[in-house]
Order: sequence, then C-alpha cells, then structure tokens
Amino acid sequence: MNELSIGIDVGGTKILALAFDPSDSTILFESRAETPDSVEAVVSALADIVAVVREGADGVAGNPEPAVPAVGLGLPGIVDSTGILRAAPNLQCAIDVDVKSRLEAILGFQVAVENDASCAAWAEATLGAGRGMGDMMLVTLGTGIGGGIVRGGELVRGAHGFAGEPGHMLVDPSGPKCTCGRFGCWERFASGSGLGWLGSRAALGGLAPGLLERAGGEAGSIDGELVSAAARDGDQGALDVLGEFSWWLAAGLANLANLLDPEVLLLGGGLADSADLYLEQTRAHFRELVLGGRARTGTGIEVATLGSRAGAVGAALLACGGRTLGS
Amino acid sequence: MNELSIGIDVGGTKILALAFDPSDSTILFESRAETPDSVEAVVSALADIVAVVREGADGVAGNPEPAVPAVGLGLPGIVDSTGILRAAPNLQCAIDVDVKSRLEAILGFQVAVENDASCAAWAEATLGAGRGMGDMMLVTLGTGIGGGIVRGGELVRGAHGFAGEPGHMLVDPSGPKCTCGRFGCWERFASGSGLGWLGSRAALGGLAPGLLERAGGEAGSIDGELVSAAARDGDQGALDVLGEFSWWLAAGLANLANLLDPEVLLLGGGLADSADLYLEQTRAHFRELVLGGRARTGTGIEVATLGSRAGAVGAALLACGGRTLGS
Repeated sequence: MNELSIGIDVGGTKILALAFDPSDSTILFESRAETPDSVEAVVSALADIVAVVREGADGVAGNPEPAVPAVGLGLPGIVDSTGILRAAPNLQCAIDVDVKSRLEAILGFQVAVENDASCAAWAEATLGAGRGMGDMMLVTLGTGIGGGIVRGGELVRGAHGFAGEPGHMLVDPSGPKCTCGRFGCWERFASGSGLGWLGSRAALGGLAPGLLERAGGEAGSIDGELVSAAARDGDQGALDVLGEFSWWLAAGLANLANLLDPEVLLLGGGLADSADLYLEQTRAHFRELVLGGRARTGTGIEVATLGSRAGAVGAALLACGGRTLGS
Repeated sequence: MNELSIGIDVGGTKILALAFDPSDSTILFESRAETPDSVEAVVSALADIVAVVREGADGVAGNPEPAVPAVGLGLPGIVDSTGILRAAPNLQCAIDVDVKSRLEAILGFQVAVENDASCAAWAEATLGAGRGMGDMMLVTLGTGIGGGIVRGGELVRGAHGFAGEPGHMLVDPSGPKCTCGRFGCWERFASGSGLGWLGSRAALGGLAPGLLERAGGEAGSIDGELVSAAARDGDQGALDVLGEFSWWLAAGLANLANLLDPEVLLLGGGLADSADLYLEQTRAHFRELVLGGRARTGTGIEVATLGSRAGAVGAALLACGGRTLGS
C-alpha cells in the first residue's frame, strides 16, 4: 500500500470511518461507532476509530501502512474555513470547538474538516452519479436536508466555508417550526421528518385513515418510514402524502436550479432509497416549477449511487488532495 | 483609442448602450432608445444604437476608432450557452430567437450575449461595490428581481447558462400569482412591484390609510414609489409596509447566503436608490433568518455602486474578454 486515506463521517447518532485506497478507489476496511454526547468523548472516539481502521487496513493490504495517512472528517453542520463547526442542530456539543486541532494533537498529523454533505457531493462527483459532470449539486434527504455544490469541477465552499446549505431555505413562512428555530424551512417538508409531518397532518385531517391505523391512532408518531411502507402496500392516503411530498421536494429543487443551473441535481441520504415512490412525480413538478421549465430539460434529477458511505468516501478523497475533478 | 468595447443593456422598456474604454474603464459616450415590440425592430434598434455610440465615441476620442469593437449585449431573461434568450417575462417577443446571430449578420462582427443582471454583477465585481471580492452576488431589485453570481473570481453561468435567477424562488406557496404563472415567488414580495403589492394589501386591510389617500382611494394603484415617498414623509403605514418588505428581502437573501455563502450580497436595481429606507432593518432580519446567523457576521449586505449603467458596463467588460477578476 502506497497511499492510505481515512475518511470519517460524523452523524448525530453514528460515526462511520473507512480506510480508502485512492490509487484504485477501493474501501479497504470500515468501522462504525456511536456518536458520544460530549466534545471530549467525540474527539476520543475519533482518535480511536482512526486507529481501528488504520490497523484494519494494514491487515487487509498485508503491507506496512504509510507513516502518515491522510485523514478527512465530515461534520454535520456549517464548518468554517479554519475547520471549526459553527452551527449544527444535531451535534450541539461540538459547536465552536476546534475538533480539528484537538484531534490533530492526539493523532500527530493533519486532519481536513468539511461539511458532511459537501464531502458526499464530492464523492458523488468523483466516483458516483455525478461523475464527469462539472456542475452538479447533491441534496441529502435524511432527518433534515443537507447539500453540497460542485461547480467548474471544484467543491464550492463559499467565502467562509458555509456554502451548500439548502435545508433551511425558507419556502413557507406559515409552515411548521424548524429545529433551527425558524418557520417553514424546506427540510420541514421535503426530508424524512418532513414526510412524517405531512403524513401526520393528513392523518389529523382525516385524509389518511390507513396511516392513522398503522400508527396505532397516534398521528404524532407517523414518520417517513411508516408513510413509505404504507405507500408500498398501496395505501391511498400514503400515496397522496407522497404526492404532496414530491411537490415540496420539487419546489426546493427548482429554487436551487434557478440559482445554480446544475447539470444534475442528485438525491442522496436515507430517503433516496425510497426514490421509486416519488422520483417521477418530483421530476414532473420540477418542470412546472422551475423558471423556463421548457428550456431547462437538460437539468436532470437523479438518485445518488454511493449510499451511506458517500460522506466518508468524500472525506477520504478530499483529505488526500483530490480537490479538482479529473486530477 | 486602442480599444473600444460597446455594452448594451436591453430592458423591457428601454435600451442603454455605451462606448467603453477598457484601458482606463471610462465611459466615452452613451445613448438610450425605447425597446421596440417586435424582434425585427429590436435587432434593427440594436444595430442602430451600436452605430450611434461608435460614432459618438469616435468624436470624443478624436482618434480613428478600431475596425472591430467588442460588443456585449445584456438581455432581460435566461440566456443559454449559445446566446439564445429562453425565457423573459418582459421581452416575450424575443424568446427562442437568435438575436445574437441576427445582430452579428448586420454588424459584421461578433456579439457576446449574457443575462442582464449577470452583466451587472460582473461590473460590480470588477469596478463597483464588489471590487476585490472573489465570492459575491448581486441582486437587482426592479419591477422583478434579477441576479448574478461571481464565485472564485468568475461569473457563474451554470451548466446551460441559466444560473443566478433568484426572483422566482418560491418563498410562500400561498402568496400572490407571479408574472411567471407560479405563486409566491420572491419577487412578488421583495421587488418594486412587491413593495407596491405589500402596500396595496396593507391599504385594503385598513392598515395604511395614508397610502390609500395618496392613491386616491385606489389600493390597486399603490406602487413601490408611492410607498417610498410616503415613508419619507413619515407615514406610519408606509413605514410598517417597508418593515414587512425588509423581512421578505432578508428572507430571500438568507436563502441565497445559506446556499452560496458570498462575501457580500449587493443590492442593485432601481429600488436600491431607496435602500436608506430598509437596509438596516433588512440586515437585522437577515441575521435572524440566515442559518448560523451568529457565525455569519462576515456576510455583508451592501448597496451596489454603478447604478443603472451596471448592466451595460458589465456587457462591455464581458465583451472585451475580461472574464476573470484581476486579469
């Protein structure tokens, strides 16, 4: 093994780390851990998991590992240009803490830090569904909505490192309250939790008796997975809710396309696994909602292909210096 | 005169053309005309105005003009990579017509075509309020809202040439119908016509008797200029309407900052002349509405400085090949 890059994706509940061989884009070893709830424990868990995957990769490759691997860290929030997490609804403990420096002090070598969805976008642009496209955006549909933008073959970071956050785009000021404290953010409608909320609202309005029954009469406990499962069973109320969801998803995607005009908008995150339930409707609504829809037939909406490893793969790619496509 | 660049800004009602000396960034001569309502007449008017400013520049400089000037054309709509206007609410006659080729056939030399607000953004980034900033966005507040994005010192065109259109960003699905046929676009609230609509709504709701009186009892005839004038006279209803306007303006700007994280968001267009009436409130709402507002104090909201000539100056700059800042 001549090169080793370690990519780590830190989520609100789980950490995924993998050892990546950039020479042939293979994953040599991977490990998962729970995300602890204090900064000290997070830094310590990160140092531990780096050791685990280094050792694991060494075992797979059968060669001495390099003395200094490249390490990339994807964090779930807005990360400034110096690598400090500045806002993160799902990782409050680590805000304004220099995780990068603390981890570097333990490891003894440099760590690249980036927003998790930006990492995933970079992975999709390099190895996934956005391969060969210089202008694309990944939108991750999970509990919330994240995003990463690639333009002219480069990851867009913005002036302060905060670019690519579509989840808290205001789309309806009379919409429900968001985890960020504001009202009517896009992720309140078009994420996994948004799908659950649309399902609950339909059930409370008497429009989805099947969903209410599945939820044991508790409309508040309807989540995105329950809606998807009911839709797969042909429940009409659930199908209607997915129709509404696809409109909200398309509305936000149209806003992004109006602004960025990418070659493709990729859908990633957990909810992308159920894209067969809403993708065609989303594409149809998108054509109605985007400015000059008739002229914009070139903008595709596709499903990302690297799945739950995209963030960690992208962190590994960014860490080893692959910052321009085709390089 | 060693170089001459002609920049033309085509609006829904007026055409502005100017002869620009790129060696010292001076405007040598300018001319205005009405925008005709047929394609043939538009192309003919453009050829005529090019001749007028060439001759005018020649008279000013006192030297023989170059045989072939650079000509740049800013059009009010989405312009594809080949220079064809694909959608334009205010210039319907010219949609899908190859104005570029027709004009080139008459002039006998090449014409660069670009979206008008993208031209203006380029001018502001090169010579105006965005000078020295590699990441900025110009938002033009006129009858509608246009925009242009500069990133990494380059104008962002997108995969098909359509990037930078924030005006039709959905911000409220229960909002009023837009000229584009959709509902609740940002420009229905935060443009000059949006300010007028907010004023009319307040008047109809009995919240702005002063506005209603100024409009001769016709709420529907309240426009942005009337609201601004009343606010300058201290009318409380008008001031309240401007407060509401500043919230909508900030909400859209926050959406843009969440996505692009520019160094500065510049406000241009006719309504920017009244920025003293709403700028401070807009900045305050922006800090509440942008994700991680506390961490984003670096993102400025400023008024553009090149005024109504920005589009034509930018078209002239783009035409003569200045496509990277600092070049």
